[in-house]
This record gives sequence, structure tokens and C-alpha cells, in this order.
Amino acid sequence: MEKDNKGITEKKENLSDWYTEVIQKAELADYSPIKGFMVIRPNAYILWEKIQNYFNKVLSKKQIKNAYFPLLIPDSFFKKEAEHAEGFAPELAYIKNTEEALAIRPTSETIIYDSYSKWIRSYKDLPLKLNQWCNVLRWEVKQTKPFLRTREFLWQEGHCVFKNEINAIKNMEEIAKEYKKMIESLLAIPVIIGKKSKLEKFPGAETTMTIEALMPDGKALQCGTSHNLGQGFAKAFKIKFKDEDEKEKYPFQTSWGFSTRLIGALIMTHGDNKGIILPPSIAENKIAIIPIIFKKSKEPIKKAREIKKKLSKFNPIMDERTEYSPGYKFHEYELKGIPLRIEIGPKDLENNQITIVRRDNNKKEIIPEKLLLKKIPEILKDIQKSLFENAKKFLNENITEAFSIKELKEKLKQGKIVKVYMVDDKKIENILKQETGATSRIIKEAPSGKCIISKKQTKTIAYISKSY
Amino acid sequence: MEKDNKGITEKKENLSDWYTEVIQKAELADYSPIKGFMVIRPNAYILWEKIQNYFNKVLSKKQIKNAYFPLLIPDSFFKKEAEHAEGFAPELAYIKNTEEALAIRPTSETIIYDSYSKWIRSYKDLPLKLNQWCNVLRWEVKQTKPFLRTREFLWQEGHCVFKNEINAIKNMEEIAKEYKKMIESLLAIPVIIGKKSKLEKFPGAETTMTIEALMPDGKALQCGTSHNLGQGFAKAFKIKFKDEDEKEKYPFQTSWGFSTRLIGALIMTHGDNKGIILPPSIAENKIAIIPIIFKKSKEPIKKAREIKKKLSKFNPIMDERTEYSPGYKFHEYELKGIPLRIEIGPKDLENNQITIVRRDNNKKEIIPEKLLLKKIPEILKDIQKSLFENAKKFLNENITEAFSIKELKEKLKQGKIVKVYMVDDKKIENILKQETGATSRIIKEAPSGKCIISKKQTKTIAYISKSY
Repeated sequence: MEKDNKGITEKKENLSDWYTEVIQKAELADYSPIKGFMVIRPNAYILWEKIQNYFNKVLSKKQIKNAYFPLLIPDSFFKKEAEHAEGFAPELAYIKNTEEALAIRPTSETIIYDSYSKWIRSYKDLPLKLNQWCNVLRWEVKQTKPFLRTREFLWQEGHCVFKNEINAIKNMEEIAKEYKKMIESLLAIPVIIGKKSKLEKFPGAETTMTIEALMPDGKALQCGTSHNLGQGFAKAFKIKFKDEDEKEKYPFQTSWGFSTRLIGALIMTHGDNKGIILPPSIAENKIAIIPIIFKKSKEPIKKAREIKKKLSKFNPIMDERTEYSPGYKFHEYELKGIPLRIEIGPKDLENNQITIVRRDNNKKEIIPEKLLLKKIPEILKDIQKSLFENAKKFLNENITEAFSIKELKEKLKQGKIVKVYMVDDKKIENILKQETGATSRIIKEAPSGKCIISKKQTKTIAYISKSY
Repeated sequence: MEKDNKGITEKKENLSDWYTEVIQKAELADYSPIKGFMVIRPNAYILWEKIQNYFNKVLSKKQIKNAYFPLLIPDSFFKKEAEHAEGFAPELAYIKNTEEALAIRPTSETIIYDSYSKWIRSYKDLPLKLNQWCNVLRWEVKQTKPFLRTREFLWQEGHCVFKNEINAIKNMEEIAKEYKKMIESLLAIPVIIGKKSKLEKFPGAETTMTIEALMPDGKALQCGTSHNLGQGFAKAFKIKFKDEDEKEKYPFQTSWGFSTRLIGALIMTHGDNKGIILPPSIAENKIAIIPIIFKKSKEPIKKAREIKKKLSKFNPIMDERTEYSPGYKFHEYELKGIPLRIEIGPKDLENNQITIVRRDNNKKEIIPEKLLLKKIPEILKDIQKSLFENAKKFLNENITEAFSIKELKEKLKQGKIVKVYMVDDKKIENILKQETGATSRIIKEAPSGKCIISKKQTKTIAYISKSY
């Protein structure tokens, strides 16, 4: 296994090459023999587990329960909701030689709502709020890239059913906010949140809310979506309940999800030429302790073990290997993004001090040993904060506006998210898409202005950018 | 949703019907529109999460890391290890219209070892110890049954690589013991542990260790297996490492797994005519508190809330619903197997006492309120113990021996696990299988005796029974 970070392309020079190389060298993912599939290695899978742990607590607080629905979906199910069918048809993979055509789930609305139609009878059965963690398959034709776009990926998908529209809308909004909170606090990635345009919304949804991050190359990355499905699926799948007034009614539904794509966002947002950088809140090991052995003295190791014990709540890695040099080890933990490095050498021993090196800004600090337990949490907190703030500054600096197609194109070339007035209409956005190769990431209400395409007055502003 | 337990077939009368009905009524699973697939509902999925939490701690202690490998496997991979290919060929489901034939994983040895062949170069890369939690698909032709045999199921599969054979064997044995420990302590299911015969071992393994439970109908249920793969897969997949002596060598491998089948074992082992019974150690809610409201007095609810707070570490369900009677609620929590029920009625209030009803033996006990925090953990512990001991007694009483085919057949009819002398040979066991419809569950070394089939002297005893 390669373990050093020599020969990584500079991040600024070629983000795509940097990304691919860093993923391989930091042992985050590997290619699969099948095009578009990937292996998620332990260094990345543990990030997914941290995300799962975080979000399972959110689910539990909201009384949303985990369940598991089948991998295979009868083709006929996809045909029940027209927009949904059209949206997913090109990406379905089918199983050979079965009586009925069976597709591998690209998302589970249809198979789950078939069950819901059996389980929901009365208003007493509502709200029904379930989530599942699973793999899904979308037979992408676009260029794939580990974590960001793969044919198979891992995700969570929540599926809730409510008596009233207002509760469905509230659920869609709450979940979108929870996504934003998680991505900002756990992954230190600042995001913008808003509604999707008619062209970009989920096939079958009335409204889609989205959480979007901006990658260093000026492309937006969709980090999660939350849909108000209205009654469309309920009608298509005959989900009905008898209300307190004894009348049969269709309920209102939501669905929402985020995926292992978040790991890609994390790598891109915080990494540098040395490798990835893990925000302390998601790092399994927040510290790497490296004793610097000099003249075969055992003192540094002894001291390092003491320190390790003291810092056990930060789950430090202790690297006592003798077959590798300190320099080699520094590189390794830099590559893997461990937030803090502690060096303990002869000089440190002499002066009862500890040498600390921050991964995010490479700053070295020498602190008295007795202040260790006070200083470490402060520094970790500061790393978390400064990773977020740097990314936030980058995001803010790269949101701009334009009032003509020409200006829009120029700013897109500079890697900006560009706010423009645009009528929220599929045809109009398709023209914009063809003209610029970019799409709207979110749309927002605004004071009136002139649509950049149709020149008509509109109260909709679209955030346009290239995207992953 | 149906919520009562009326009309469940008696468990003794027809275990299969009882099982199917109880799974539906306790909302553990539901059928899928596709034959052989099932929906795992929240009441059962949470049991799987408890099992995952338990076992993730075991993995972590053993420094085995979680990862994720692709769902689809090139058909050519299955052909590399001959026995493995033969064993799984009939159960593979393929994807339509891909250039190379792609199968959905029935188990992941082949796709994982393809990666291992790239990752392992030096003795420094060993041991390599990974696990994955995932879904697998086996296109069963046998009758399917929720949890016990379904075409898709959830499981964990561990895949370890060692320099030396001795460490591989040790790993196989340690994991088998951990499985036994988990199944006995968490699920309160007593098991027997041992090696599989040549006929029954995993396709491609040198040795398979198995953990077997006995269901109430006298059929054995395989609860987990652990394989010593020797160097067979390493040779087939060209996994080689340069040892300290600079020589290239093939490493030794293990793989091991258990599945959502354990939930089926749990239901069958402990359930009764009222529904399922959850051992306290796996129950998310260990107690259901039911205030008995009399003459619209609010006192029982007030007291019940107090009690709920006091018992919060047992995560009690508090059922304040007014639209259902106490009797209805009793039935519901009995059906769902909540280990303890607390009733708080006017009489209890008067006497500062609490009425407790055990789910396992239905015994009612009245205890002074002030002894609550002392008594509840004792009772829960006793429930756990007595569920295990009852099942253990059943298992012990149903292991017997036979010295002729006739005797074996008679005892199999009585639902026994029957110990017989049998030469460990595929042909011989196939004869026994054809004669009796039963198979060997485990084999053990023993003092010499006469093989029940070949009449030759042998030192192998086989535990024969019908099985799921």
C-alpha cells in the first residue's frame, strides 16, 4: 500500500486529478473492476458511520424509525407516477430472466408506498415516519467519480406520511434545516439552502428543497434534498385513510435523502496539497502522537504513552513503529487528515513541554505539559471553526449576480454562483442551460426584476452555476 | 394496522402458521410484491440495529474495520475458485444488458479478494481485517420464510488475511466463539458450536465452523458460520505478499458472517401464544407503563409519569392513549414482546405500590414503590436468565443418539438432534441425506465407533437433524 503523499498534483492546478490521487493515497476509496462502482475503504467508511450516528440521533428525536425495504422493484411500480417514471427510466438496471421486469432501486418511493397503501387505514396510523439506510443504483451515463457520482452509492432515504399538507411542508423544511445543520457543524461545510426550480426538482415532487455547497473549482455540489410530494404518490399508489370525520382521504407525503457524496464534498472542501483535512468533529482519531526516538532512548515512548492516556477521549493514534522515520509518519497523518499532531522528542522531555502541529494551517506550537488538557480542546475547536470560516469566506466571495447572458457566462467562467432573475419555467431554464451549460441550484423569491432569458418581469431569482 | 393478537394459531399446534401470523401482527415484517423478498419493519429493524451495535464493539476490539464493496460482481470472478463457483452458481441473479455478465453479490469473497490482491504487497500489510454490513441476494428455489430464508437478506461478512495459517485458524475460532457469546447473551438463544462436515462446509473453505440453534419444531437453524479459507482464494485471486525473508508467499484467509436470520431465531425460540418475547438485553423498550384510569382521575397518569422518569434508563413506553382500553394495551405489548408491564391503578396509588407483570411467565407481582429501582433490574435479569435456561433445557433434552438408520429416523421424527457415528465423506453423507431428509449440523471428534452408513470404524460423530 502506498502511504506517502509524494507526487500529488497541486490542488489549485488540477482539482480533479488532485481529488482522484488523494482518494487513492489516503486509502479512502478504490476503483472496482466494474465501471462506475467503487470500494469504500475503512478510512472513508468510518466517516459515513459518523454521519450515520449523528443523523440517527436526529431521526430518533423526531420519532422517525429505521426500516428496510427490498432492493428489487417491479417495473410496473415506476409507471404509476408519471413524472417519477420519466425521471428515473434512463437510469434503471434490470434483473435478467424474471417473469416480471425487476429493477434495482434507484430510490424507494414506489416500493415503500406500495407497503404504505397496505399499512395505512385510519387517521390513527398517521403520521407514519420511516427512514432507511441502504445502497441504491443509478446507471449513470455521465463521467463517474468516487463519492461524487457513482452508479452505486449508499444513502439514507426518509419517507413520511401526514394527514395535513401543512405538516408535510413543515417536515420537508425541518429536514432540510437538519441537513444544513449537520453538514455545517459535523463536516464544516457551509451551504446554501433553498427551493429547486421546476426543471430541477425531484421527479414526482411538488417542491424540492436542496442544500448546496460550492467546491473549490466553482462547481456547486448538491448535498441533500427534501421533497414535499403532495398527494401525487398517494393517488398513484392508492394510499388512503379514514379521517375522524369518517371520510376517506389521501394523505400528504415527503421524502428526503443524502448520500456518501458528502464524503466527496468533505475531501474537496478541506483538503490541501498534503492530503485531506478532517474537521475534528468527524475525525475518529483527533490526534496522532509521534515519539521522536533519539539515540535509542525509551523516554519519548514512555512519555508519549502517558500523554496518550491523558488524551484518551480524543482517541489518539500512537505511532511507535520503528521501521518508519518521524518524517514519514508526519506525511502519513497529514495525508490522512488527522487534525492535530503531537511530537515528543528529547527537547520536549527536557523542558516538560509538548510540540503540537495543526493540520489545517501547519502552525507549530509548544505548550507546557501541564496545560495540555486545557489547550487541546481549545485548539481542536479552533481548527473546526477556522475550517468552516475559510470555506464560508470562499462561498460568500463567490456568490455574485448578473443581468445579461454575457455577464452570466463570464462569471460562470470565473467559477461563480451567479444570481439572476429568471422565470421559473422548464422551457426558459432549458434555454439557459443550453446557452451556458449551467443550471439553477436554488431559486428564491425576490423583488421584481427582468428575466435574463425571457426579458419578462419576474419575482424569482435563480442561483446559477456549473455543478457536479 | 392490526394491533391485537386475537386469532393467532397456537404455537404448539402449527409453528409455521404461528410464526407467519406473529410476524405480521407484531409488525416485524411484511411480504414484498416480489416472491421471496420481505420488508423489515421498525419493530424488527431495531433488533438488527442492536445486534449491529453489539457486534461493532466486538469488531472494534479486534481491530477489524468496516468497509463497503460493490453490489455487482463480474461473473468471471466466480469462476476463479472452483468449489465456490459450483456452490453459488444456481443462486446468482444477473443484470440485464451489460457487456460483461454481472451478478448481484450472494457473498463477497470474490470481489473483496480482487481488491486485496491490489492492496497486499508486503508482510507489513498483514493482517488485513475488514468487515462489511450489506444486503446480499441468493435466488432461492426453496420455500422462503421471513427472516429465515429470503432471497435478499442483510448480513455482516468479515474477511481477514493473515501471514500464517495458525492465525487464520485462530481467527476463525475466535469469531465463532464471539458469535456464540452474542447469540447466547444478547438473544438468549443457546447454541451448539462445531465444525461442518465436508458436504456442508462453505464452498471454497477448508474448514467451516458453525453455530446452530434448535427451533421448537425440532429443526436446527444455522445462526452463523466462520470459515478457514486456507490459501485457495489467495491462489485463485493472486493475493501475494513479500515476507520478511524477501520471498513471495500466499497468505491465509478467513471469512465469516451472520444475518437477519437471527431475528427469525429469536422470534421462534422465545415467542408464545400471545406473541413474541424480547429478552431484556435486546429490547429497546424494556418496560411498558400503563396507567389505569378510573373515574377520569388524573392521578394514575401523574404517578405513571413519575415512574417513567425514574425508570428512564430502561427506556419505558408510556401509554397514555385514552381511545384504547387497558386490556387492549396489555395485548399490544404482549404481542410485541415488551419484557415487563407496569400497571398503575387506583389501588396501587392508595397503597404506594406498583403492579408488575412479567412477559415471559405472566407472573404478577406487587411491589412497594420505594423498592422499584432495586427490584426492576433484578426482575429483568431474571427474565433474561430464565428465557435462556428454558431454551437451554429444551436444547439439552433434544440431543440424543442413535446406532442404526431406523433408530435415527424415529428420533428425527420426534424432532431430535441425533448424534451418530458417521465417516466424514460427501458420498456417505449424501446417502444419509437421501435416506432421512436430514443433514449433519456439526461434526465432532469422538472415541471410535461404527459409521451408521458405511459400517466402517470412524472417529467422527455427526449431529443429524432436519433444518431450516
